[in-house]
Amino acid sequence: MIVEQQTINLGRFKRGYHLVTNILEANVSALRGIEKGIAHLFIHHTSASLTLNENADPSVRHDLELFLDALVPDGDKRYTHDDEGPDDMPAHVKTSLLGASLTVPVKNGRFLLGTWQGIYLCEHRDHGDNRKLTVTVMGTK
Amino acid sequence: MIVEQQTINLGRFKRGYHLVTNILEANVSALRGIEKGIAHLFIHHTSASLTLNENADPSVRHDLELFLDALVPDGDKRYTHDDEGPDDMPAHVKTSLLGASLTVPVKNGRFLLGTWQGIYLCEHRDHGDNRKLTVTVMGTK
Amino acid sequence: MIVEQQTINLGRFKRGYHLVTNILEANVSALRGIEKGIAHLFIHHTSASLTLNENADPSVRHDLELFLDALVPDGDKRYTHDDEGPDDMPAHVKTSLLGASLTVPVKNGRFLLGTWQGIYLCEHRDHGDNRKLTVTVMGTK
Repeated sequence: MIVEQQTINLGRFKRGYHLVTNILEANVSALRGIEKGIAHLFIHHTSASLTLNENADPSVRHDLELFLDALVPDGDKRYTHDDEGPDDMPAHVKTSLLGASLTVPVKNGRFLLGTWQGIYLCEHRDHGDNRKLTVTVMGTK
Repeated sequence: MIVEQQTINLGRFKRGYHLVTNILEANVSALRGIEKGIAHLFIHHTSASLTLNENADPSVRHDLELFLDALVPDGDKRYTHDDEGPDDMPAHVKTSLLGASLTVPVKNGRFLLGTWQGIYLCEHRDHGDNRKLTVTVMGTK
Repeated sequence: MIVEQQTINLGRFKRGYHLVTNILEANVSALRGIEKGIAHLFIHHTSASLTLNENADPSVRHDLELFLDALVPDGDKRYTHDDEGPDDMPAHVKTSLLGASLTVPVKNGRFLLGTWQGIYLCEHRDHGDNRKLTVTVMGTK
């Protein structure tokens, strides 16, 4: 039984939804040693999310962002928490709707995803900071 | 410590939200060997979700679907991704809102759910294909 | 490798979103023995949720609740499931949108959260009952 934990600095992302499956697979060295198990991906922030969605057509990323930006519009006057600008509280709301963590099965050293599944990092801030993830991999050799 | 991983073909479902707790418990043979641990349920698709909700009254499944179909209507003209029809992009949005995976505690060979909790498979497509799940069970005998 | 499972009665909460990080850390005795691993937090109910969000400014909790209460209003006439009053079905919807479980990395006997991350218990009912959680901690000493 292996338990490996690794914290990764992913750098800054533009506001938007980004496919990061390959970046994560390349950086999580602990994956390679696992025959079967799980990988837990956890973003240490409250204004960026992780979600799984379609990995082929970039318009899915675009349309998903468009939907959420319309559902949770910037500058909504109802909020009292707006110290950091019109995208502050909406970023918190979107983080809770999409979630800050994902668990993915691991098989033979790789994420065991569906053919069309990719991991998105969703940056909800106009000027988000460096984004940090902790990946915990558990399984058998 | 046991790690068991199993991929299950659940077949096709009608568009709608279906209670699948019993189907999963019956099919995940690895559950039986676990005294305490977790089960990670992962659907390999981007237009169907897993969620936990009320297991007794079918009207909860109906009303939850009704809410999400109104929140994310078919045929929304704002989307650019519509190759597979008016239910294509809405299915992707609903998948991210509800999520493609669940982790559930396991105790004495069974899912340790609340009295009123059941596992829903939410089929967001009008004509969804066969749905495949990978279940990873980890724990002690 | 350690697997510990503990069910905790958290008592009753007022309708609203409550920061429970410290209550959980204090009560989950199994955490202390783990050098690295994960903690899976699972609420046994269908009208209360767990989510991660900002831990400093109480107005984030307030605004997040305000957003969800407006998105999923009480007394919506479209629902057929309303036996327990106008907050019944909306509580189920909000539970699925936010989710009933969280997985958090564990390091050196503590939740490994971001600086601004806290665990919220979201009580969606006007008169919710005692809320019960099962925490499963897995990792190495």
